Amino acid sequence: MFKNLGYTFEPTYKEKLWMYDPRTEVGKKRMKKQKELLERFLPIKSGKALDIGCGMGISTFALENLGFEVIGIDVQGELVEKARGIAKELGFKAEFRVMDAKKLDFPDESFDLVALLGNPLPHLSVYDFDEIVQEVFRVLKPNGAIFVDYADWVRLLHDGYKHVLVEDPFISFHVSLNTMKGQVERFFINLEKGYFFRVKINVWAPWIVEFILRKAGFEVETHYLGTFSVVGVGRKSSGV
Amino acid sequence: MFKNLGYTFEPTYKEKLWMYDPRTEVGKKRMKKQKELLERFLPIKSGKALDIGCGMGISTFALENLGFEVIGIDVQGELVEKARGIAKELGFKAEFRVMDAKKLDFPDESFDLVALLGNPLPHLSVYDFDEIVQEVFRVLKPNGAIFVDYADWVRLLHDGYKHVLVEDPFISFHVSLNTMKGQVERFFINLEKGYFFRVKINVWAPWIVEFILRKAGFEVETHYLGTFSVVGVGRKSSGV
Repeated sequence: MFKNLGYTFEPTYKEKLWMYDPRTEVGKKRMKKQKELLERFLPIKSGKALDIGCGMGISTFALENLGFEVIGIDVQGELVEKARGIAKELGFKAEFRVMDAKKLDFPDESFDLVALLGNPLPHLSVYDFDEIVQEVFRVLKPNGAIFVDYADWVRLLHDGYKHVLVEDPFISFHVSLNTMKGQVERFFINLEKGYFFRVKINVWAPWIVEFILRKAGFEVETHYLGTFSVVGVGRKSSGV
Repeated sequence: MFKNLGYTFEPTYKEKLWMYDPRTEVGKKRMKKQKELLERFLPIKSGKALDIGCGMGISTFALENLGFEVIGIDVQGELVEKARGIAKELGFKAEFRVMDAKKLDFPDESFDLVALLGNPLPHLSVYDFDEIVQEVFRVLKPNGAIFVDYADWVRLLHDGYKHVLVEDPFISFHVSLNTMKGQVERFFINLEKGYFFRVKINVWAPWIVEFILRKAGFEVETHYLGTFSVVGVGRKSSGV
């Protein structure tokens, strides 16, 4: 009866494209939220920005709306294609490229801002994020900033995110915690569309994010929003 | 009625010295347990060993019993004094020094083994442990090993270590979790001796320990024992 989409993020985002499309109601809401976060916590107001994990452009267009000249990158080629089409359709100037954030194809000191928006950390292990952060440090100009929004998963575990959550039209269940890998496994059912899948979520918390940013050379400020939403801002000091 | 010992580890270990004394029943049990762990997981069977956080010598003597030539270090001068006296009393050859593990006063490649035994990680932030691990890597010979036993605190939080625990003669309560600092605060009452104190415990889990060890250059193996006890072993490969 229900379609099994499997175990990873990859097969599932295709079924949830409306969430990542800047033209849908959900997409517009996400863009508005991201723009508000950036306005509230960004230490930089203009210049060249790199949007890592741009998807279909929600975060990229939020940055462009704020006045940045933006390049969006993503490893998913088909999302980058879609983002290009949507940019043309909506009149955005942002440029999009397929690129692995662990090997940024840009010279040193190319950007004023690098953003990872929309909580991409569940997709990244500490090793992945560490490599990305080192690359980001390299491509940032002196006084440049990295901006990350993410969920505090250690807090969520502590507060009891082991129970069934009803988030219409989804129901989700905690399956397991693997502290060797730093991952939570969770089971989602979409009752309206009739599919289910398992997701492995990398567990993050502010002290771990801060450690990796500081280790790469950033000065860090963390802003805690409500119960588990966090914004981390790292500055590449001009003295480096 | 109950004596308040305050907030940190420092004022409390003095009231719990019997736990760290190799001559008491509790101390003998701890030494036996540590020796068993070392025998089971140590990749090295002899040579020069450094025991970081030696306290009153339990772990140092466990290492000497296994055949190592051991130097024990601790930042607590009075514990080091006691360890020296106990070594003389019990006929151990181990040497003891007051030293900060973040600045090891030994040349490069001095040791075959460096051990952190008896779960010292709750005392250490990720920054402290990271500095120590880099120093340990430096003072280890090629093929040398670091050995750490610790508790998986993310697992404990997940499994509900928020409740009251009765561990005669102690009762302990969860007070709070601070994910900005990576610390749990816990309240202990000793009903027999009539004192209470608060402890801030740094939260650790295998994937974070492994990340820090690998980042310093170690090849890592983690052994999970039962529900939350972990042994981490790092090798300094001879190719480095």
